[in-house]
Amino acid sequence: MKVIDFYFDFSSPYGYFMSEKIGATAKRYGRTVHWHPVLLFAVLRSVGLPPPFEHPIKLEYITKDFARSAKQSGIEYALPPTFPASTQNAARAFYLLNEKAPQSAIAFAQSVLRKFFCDGLDISSLELISQIVCSQTDALGDLVGVSDLLKTQAAKSLLQNAIAQAVDKKVFGSPFVIIDGEPFFGFDRLMHIEQKLASS
Amino acid sequence: MKVIDFYFDFSSPYGYFMSEKIGATAKRYGRTVHWHPVLLFAVLRSVGLPPPFEHPIKLEYITKDFARSAKQSGIEYALPPTFPASTQNAARAFYLLNEKAPQSAIAFAQSVLRKFFCDGLDISSLELISQIVCSQTDALGDLVGVSDLLKTQAAKSLLQNAIAQAVDKKVFGSPFVIIDGEPFFGFDRLMHIEQKLASS
Repeated sequence: MKVIDFYFDFSSPYGYFMSEKIGATAKRYGRTVHWHPVLLFAVLRSVGLPPPFEHPIKLEYITKDFARSAKQSGIEYALPPTFPASTQNAARAFYLLNEKAPQSAIAFAQSVLRKFFCDGLDISSLELISQIVCSQTDALGDLVGVSDLLKTQAAKSLLQNAIAQAVDKKVFGSPFVIIDGEPFFGFDRLMHIEQKLASS
Repeated sequence: MKVIDFYFDFSSPYGYFMSEKIGATAKRYGRTVHWHPVLLFAVLRSVGLPPPFEHPIKLEYITKDFARSAKQSGIEYALPPTFPASTQNAARAFYLLNEKAPQSAIAFAQSVLRKFFCDGLDISSLELISQIVCSQTDALGDLVGVSDLLKTQAAKSLLQNAIAQAVDKKVFGSPFVIIDGEPFFGFDRLMHIEQKLASS
């Protein structure tokens, strides 16, 4: 089956919005979505770009735009109290699952995003991420086992490789979607994505 | 009549795309559009933000996105050979017209945008801008008279005031639309603008 590559950061509201829509859109056109969580700050630093939205005038604007975009698309959303969160535990867990229990990796990612953007939980927490992993599968072991796994060099390396691959693909934001080599940056490009899928 | 404030830079493709749509959208909701050309670089410098798209990875992406966005919206467009152009002459001429022949200011602006983004002419040219002014009205005098006027301190001051007002309104991009105090950044926010107008 032909794929769609979907890059995002677990702390990105627009990435979350895309995560709620891209699966159904892909399915309508017989495509499967490959999810690629990254640490956006690391990607941008590697490319030589500044962190997004650090200027107060932009932060004030996009905080409004997050809520407006969610409402317009019928997506449940509230700005989490711990926004922006550190997302390395969530991203490492995703790639560990992707290796050992790939069928639960996307459900895990969706759960993390909703716990952050709907329930306001702190997804930087190693404990919370371990709990979400265990609620999906026992393939990585029990709570203590998962927590330990997330701190290993193997887990770090998987994420580092994923970030390096994203940089290689010229990803520079979240969400970032690549379809047959054509890049689409931003949740607001969903209609362009739909048109691309319809014509290819 | 209630207004919509529309800020843009004459050299901004997304600003041009919005200029082709905002008038009809406003009209459907009984609004009139106030056009505010600015020098985006001056606005951003004043706010403390870097120029847009200066990083090669972003420039490569948006160059593709310009064409895709135009096509998706049915707007005639080609990347001008002199992109990005210096737009101070065009913006000064707009504000001079706005004072002395306000009924021709918007038609002048539309003509400048189309000569740049459809015909590929160099809108940084004082002569071209003077010609476009004279093709719309003789309120600013003949070709030589208009060229002279564009170099006056009065013309510079009008534009400087407009830029200061845009900074004051927290404008940080092109196009930037403000409706009843609510800001909308980007051509891709046209649907949000439509929804705002429908509900207010």
